[in-house]
Amino acid sequence: MVYTLVLLRHGQSDWNQKNLFTGWVDVRLSEQGRAEAKRAGELLVEHGVLPDVLHTSVLTRAIQTANIALEHADRAWIDVRRSWRLNERHYGALQGLDKAETLEKYGPEQFMLWRRSFDTPPPVLADDAEWSQVGDPRYAGLADGELPRTECLKDVIARMLPYWESAIVPDLRSGRTVVVAAHGNSLRALVKHLDGIGDDDIAELNIPTGIPLVYELGEDFMPIAPGRYLDPEAAAAGAAAVAAQGRK
Amino acid sequence: MVYTLVLLRHGQSDWNQKNLFTGWVDVRLSEQGRAEAKRAGELLVEHGVLPDVLHTSVLTRAIQTANIALEHADRAWIDVRRSWRLNERHYGALQGLDKAETLEKYGPEQFMLWRRSFDTPPPVLADDAEWSQVGDPRYAGLADGELPRTECLKDVIARMLPYWESAIVPDLRSGRTVVVAAHGNSLRALVKHLDGIGDDDIAELNIPTGIPLVYELGEDFMPIAPGRYLDPEAAAAGAAAVAAQGRK
Repeated sequence: MVYTLVLLRHGQSDWNQKNLFTGWVDVRLSEQGRAEAKRAGELLVEHGVLPDVLHTSVLTRAIQTANIALEHADRAWIDVRRSWRLNERHYGALQGLDKAETLEKYGPEQFMLWRRSFDTPPPVLADDAEWSQVGDPRYAGLADGELPRTECLKDVIARMLPYWESAIVPDLRSGRTVVVAAHGNSLRALVKHLDGIGDDDIAELNIPTGIPLVYELGEDFMPIAPGRYLDPEAAAAGAAAVAAQGRK
Repeated sequence: MVYTLVLLRHGQSDWNQKNLFTGWVDVRLSEQGRAEAKRAGELLVEHGVLPDVLHTSVLTRAIQTANIALEHADRAWIDVRRSWRLNERHYGALQGLDKAETLEKYGPEQFMLWRRSFDTPPPVLADDAEWSQVGDPRYAGLADGELPRTECLKDVIARMLPYWESAIVPDLRSGRTVVVAAHGNSLRALVKHLDGIGDDDIAELNIPTGIPLVYELGEDFMPIAPGRYLDPEAAAAGAAAVAAQGRK
């Protein structure tokens, strides 16, 4: 049995466009982001990759991306599951800050440490700060202490992998094609696991927005071949654009 | 404990606009339908009715309506459950026919019998007909003989009520505000149950599109007060428009 997994990073959001650190702030797709999502749905159809079940974060931009893509793939009707464990990395006190200004103010070394360090999170976001998620009803079910105030990639892996094992793998095991609509860092965490990328090498991995990344998995739910983007040229250009973020 | 239930009939579809019998044919919202869905979301916010969980049919027009409404109510992230048991009435061999032409060809008596008879279904839709749902992957999980080829309202009630009892009531019991995004006839079936409307009187009930209908339910999950539309004037005008369908 070969299992099919599709990863989809949300299209451009209003804050991507404005070059702000977003994290858990619940911004919407930009017009370009909606167009990317539509294109993702068309790519699924063109390649005959038809999801049976959707997993999303609880952030609107990932949900919008999935809804638009699936509508254009004629699969709006598939089952849906959501979890905060698929959310973007919480960017701590950087949430809401301009990336270029932050780079200028703190310098390239600190900037890249916050963006790409495996185990150093940004400063904690205060609970009464403008962009805090404390009190947001979508997190009301989280146990005390589970709601992050900042995260590094290591933290994202720690809260994402239990969801992979307990929710996504069982859907794959039932023979369903699973699409995971999520974010740059929650998907980097998953790809790190699937491709066995080391803690030092993961900094180099950039996932482009809006282009389905398809994995064929074996009985151990690990890849039997490298993941493939359904539009490799656009994916390469998109990954380069992500790597360049923050530069003016 | 008072439980809150919100019923939402999908906005205008491409085929509503063209005045065709739709039933289980999976058409999309028209531009007007999308605007109605947006307005539904705004009404939820204005009245402070915030759903915690969504139940939809597996037809795209109901799913689109829910997605757009919830996005505009800032609740895109709530849990989702779908069932074919919330689908529109299967219109049998009428699916795909023009309503005005059908009225002219068969006369007002036969026309109204097909549209509003409680227990007389239209002629069966052949499995190889253009608008048949046989072979549609979204119904692959149905047991043999469960997939309808035509339905009267009595049939809709028979397949909808088990879902009400087994899936919607448990969500209400857990204290969640439930929104059901569905169709003219699956919602008429539910309102018939909630309001205790007789088999002879249900023909007169028309549910307008795109206007949330809110029920407060008691411990027996029956209404403790009449259901209220969040925009009563628009609802009255909408119900009159539904009643007039088929007339040129």
